[in-house]
Amino acid sequence: MDKILRVNLTNGAMTTVPVPDRWAKLTGRALTSTIVAEEVPPTCHPLDGAKNKLVFAPGFLSTSFASSAGRLSVGGKSPLTNGIKESNSGGNLAAAMGNLGYRAIVLEGESRQWQVLVLNKDGVTLEPAIDLVGETSYDAADVLRGRYGRRAAMAIIGPAGEFRLPTAAVMVTDMDGVPSRPAARGGLGAVMGSKRLKAIVVNPAGMKKNPPVDRKKLHAATKRFAQALMAHPASGKSLPIYGTDALVGPIDKIGGLPTRNFRNGSFEGAAGISGERLREIIVARGGKTTHPCMPGCVIQCSNVYPGPDGVERVRGLEFETIVLNGSNLSIDSLDVVAELNRLCNLYGLDTIEIGAAMGVAMDGGLLAFGDGSGAVSLLKEVGKGTPLGRLIGSGAVAVGHALGVTHVPAVKGQAMAAYDPRRLKGTGVTYATSPMGADHTAGNCLPNTVLPGVGPIDTTKREHQVELSRYLQKVAAAFDSLGLCWFSRYPILGDPTLLLDMLEAQTGEIWTWDGVLDLGWQTVQTEVAFNRAAGFTEADDRLPDFFREEPLPPTGDTFDIPRKELLQTLNL
Amino acid sequence: MDKILRVNLTNGAMTTVPVPDRWAKLTGRALTSTIVAEEVPPTCHPLDGAKNKLVFAPGFLSTSFASSAGRLSVGGKSPLTNGIKESNSGGNLAAAMGNLGYRAIVLEGESRQWQVLVLNKDGVTLEPAIDLVGETSYDAADVLRGRYGRRAAMAIIGPAGEFRLPTAAVMVTDMDGVPSRPAARGGLGAVMGSKRLKAIVVNPAGMKKNPPVDRKKLHAATKRFAQALMAHPASGKSLPIYGTDALVGPIDKIGGLPTRNFRNGSFEGAAGISGERLREIIVARGGKTTHPCMPGCVIQCSNVYPGPDGVERVRGLEFETIVLNGSNLSIDSLDVVAELNRLCNLYGLDTIEIGAAMGVAMDGGLLAFGDGSGAVSLLKEVGKGTPLGRLIGSGAVAVGHALGVTHVPAVKGQAMAAYDPRRLKGTGVTYATSPMGADHTAGNCLPNTVLPGVGPIDTTKREHQVELSRYLQKVAAAFDSLGLCWFSRYPILGDPTLLLDMLEAQTGEIWTWDGVLDLGWQTVQTEVAFNRAAGFTEADDRLPDFFREEPLPPTGDTFDIPRKELLQTLNL
Repeated sequence: MDKILRVNLTNGAMTTVPVPDRWAKLTGRALTSTIVAEEVPPTCHPLDGAKNKLVFAPGFLSTSFASSAGRLSVGGKSPLTNGIKESNSGGNLAAAMGNLGYRAIVLEGESRQWQVLVLNKDGVTLEPAIDLVGETSYDAADVLRGRYGRRAAMAIIGPAGEFRLPTAAVMVTDMDGVPSRPAARGGLGAVMGSKRLKAIVVNPAGMKKNPPVDRKKLHAATKRFAQALMAHPASGKSLPIYGTDALVGPIDKIGGLPTRNFRNGSFEGAAGISGERLREIIVARGGKTTHPCMPGCVIQCSNVYPGPDGVERVRGLEFETIVLNGSNLSIDSLDVVAELNRLCNLYGLDTIEIGAAMGVAMDGGLLAFGDGSGAVSLLKEVGKGTPLGRLIGSGAVAVGHALGVTHVPAVKGQAMAAYDPRRLKGTGVTYATSPMGADHTAGNCLPNTVLPGVGPIDTTKREHQVELSRYLQKVAAAFDSLGLCWFSRYPILGDPTLLLDMLEAQTGEIWTWDGVLDLGWQTVQTEVAFNRAAGFTEADDRLPDFFREEPLPPTGDTFDIPRKELLQTLNL
Repeated sequence: MDKILRVNLTNGAMTTVPVPDRWAKLTGRALTSTIVAEEVPPTCHPLDGAKNKLVFAPGFLSTSFASSAGRLSVGGKSPLTNGIKESNSGGNLAAAMGNLGYRAIVLEGESRQWQVLVLNKDGVTLEPAIDLVGETSYDAADVLRGRYGRRAAMAIIGPAGEFRLPTAAVMVTDMDGVPSRPAARGGLGAVMGSKRLKAIVVNPAGMKKNPPVDRKKLHAATKRFAQALMAHPASGKSLPIYGTDALVGPIDKIGGLPTRNFRNGSFEGAAGISGERLREIIVARGGKTTHPCMPGCVIQCSNVYPGPDGVERVRGLEFETIVLNGSNLSIDSLDVVAELNRLCNLYGLDTIEIGAAMGVAMDGGLLAFGDGSGAVSLLKEVGKGTPLGRLIGSGAVAVGHALGVTHVPAVKGQAMAAYDPRRLKGTGVTYATSPMGADHTAGNCLPNTVLPGVGPIDTTKREHQVELSRYLQKVAAAFDSLGLCWFSRYPILGDPTLLLDMLEAQTGEIWTWDGVLDLGWQTVQTEVAFNRAAGFTEADDRLPDFFREEPLPPTGDTFDIPRKELLQTLNL
């Protein structure tokens, strides 16, 4: 992974350059954010194809076959937040890029015609894609697999990206070649659409691999890491059995489950969308309760969800999707949620932002809470690109703006995920202060997370939330920078040598845990600096007032982290 | 004018208090902005009725019968810009408030039921208005006139304000009681809607007047001022003959007339929407080519525009409305523009923002440039409150966000008026730097405006534009603060004693021109400080990049004021 591919869509120029020295220790989010910060004018319009860039970067371990270590970072200036964005996905693209030796692909400029970027053993080409315009991500993937090989890994945009909607995702293929692993948040699919690039197709067949410096040591280290993952109750038991949806029960129980546009923290229909129910349905219908999203993963927390006829409806039905499109809309049917998820995948949309936008629309009276078929119809409008669909596809803040709804659960233009900050206060601190906007992946503080030197933290209390968020924002940025899945933290935070050994075997360099944390911290600081230059201030580091003012039933809690303390989270 | 009425809509409490000493020399915009800055949390949601306030304030001369001196300031935090806003209107409300002795009406809190605020000789009451919900501003005015007297002056919101659309205006009655004088910009009608106040009705009949300190001197001074207005070619000749639409010819001629969403500076159909054509139509159909919007006005630049049947269609058809809904949409028919204006008045909408939003919608392919009947249909969607209408009614930036259009002529969330900044560069400086967002009324630099100490400025050149904008922003804020119409500047800037004499006669205080300018400057600085606390930075003080990068046909000019210089406009 010693080279960077730059593709100028305006004139078709493609150059491959060695990784410059100053970026030698950067991969993943650290690299995407650094490139964006160095090369994109902070005040540019995110859809100005000539100025904004879209950067794809795997982590150091992408080709190592280490479990949970092949995530992809996609970075650019976000059309949703107007700030810097890194959006992260599983799937097989990171490994394919790594196997071709690419540290990053940097998309620059904008094409006049729709194209596809193809990387394979024959080189790099831009090929016409006019026949794919308007196709769903799934249909486009079918065509492209036929054209460029079954093993091709891809990043594709659906109609939403073509429409340049600020909720458009970049859809990455899973190991079966199905584009079901979105780099969803922040509308980076619209940036790809602004460049008129329908897909990136990477087929590593016949190419030399990206060999580790010490193969034997790497083998031993990845094996030890896999064993540690399996030994941990979360990554070894709960996630493989129930998937991420295992969280519905516990988050509902503490009263932090976003319900009816964040007006309640507990959902009377929670049992209908729980991990237990999800497993029950999948088992009964002959689907898959476990499924890996990345090569080598031993957790396999994903799933394949079939309809009553046993035919696959959607894969990778996740907790956040289920909550934002379930309890948040007062919908207690997993079949409805699965259909919403399926449509989001086809159109190439962020399920979190869309669910939040529909929640605001329901709050504004556009349709009734609980109206599942209404929600499905509404989502189809987005796929068609009707004005109503464009409005919903503009995100939760835009819907609130248009409907005069003040109760909009968003920070820096981006909607919150499946954790109400009044009961998950550390996550609230992350929502408020992360340069990513309200993004749980930037530092999600689940109940009883251990804060080093302090112990397990009760997220429903005020104490230690700022420290916890700061710590996890650092860890999350570091993990994103190394291509690590967030679930790999379960063993690694207890024993960092699990990670350090793998990194050393792969790169031949000495790594320290402090160095890893520092990588995360520096990355976040780079992002904060970009946002400051783009016009963000402390005034943007806040939750909407109603989280401080409206007690959340049933506990009656508010978000009560003192503002002064909150502002110190990243400004140390 | 020694008292302030505070109305708390939440609990119905109404208190009348004397003007505090620190506000003794403040009226109009100086007072609305000061009250907003002191009392509204800068980061609050503008539609949070419990936090935002809506302030109505006439100027010192509102009851003087001086020509062009009875404008009304309406202030609050804007749902469109998220910053402080003063929106300014003619009509008869300022005089009525002044005659009742009110320096300001401050609306606080939010009601659960729709109400009307009534001020008359019997006192102040809040009365139910459930029967008026959904009524157009015109229909509501009819009902209210019947209920509270033909002489009642009013501020009314239409359906747009009820929908809390960020383009909603506060519609003020003219001297015939017709709500055709909007305080249009910045969506303050939505703030009134968020408080569920359909109208303010002020009937000064039977109340003691607001006597000047020196009636004889005032009489002489207002007479001298009226004569000076009539002697000036602009206020004495051009405006009375052609109205504000006189500008179409000259602005088109210099290549600064916004055409097809600011993609051209000259409109092939300009003759069809010119002041000459407007006059011709009005004369031929038996309308009124002159009409006063305020008591005592000698300019009478307004008009009454009839249809081919001779029946009134709309009154107060102005240059900015005509350009944004004419050339900007490639529509060359005044009848179509008049219909768009009529609908905006009925629904209570800002014609500038709506015209700009439709221009962006046309640019995004929602309908074709030049499609007049399509534009009328689209506007009717806004009045009905359909999702499509809500999108258009969200303003130009929101439409661009939803349709993926980067070519959006707006600053701080607000669309530009009828002056392309590439040829009217001083106005471009005002658009970029004014705390009001892109608002020509904050300091409009027309061709050949005289900059004191320098002389007439060529607005198509780079030189002196920053100084000119600074000077005119100061003057505009001062004039807004004194209730002066912008057209009163024609004689006053040449001979300030015309103004000072009137102020001294009315108030009994000594006024200096430096003091007047300082009032303007302090007001702007108060507003800038509010915006800074709300989260605005220098990054917000900029025109969209395309104004610097895309040459404007036919002259090929760009906006080329050096950024460093630009940023010094208000930061001295």
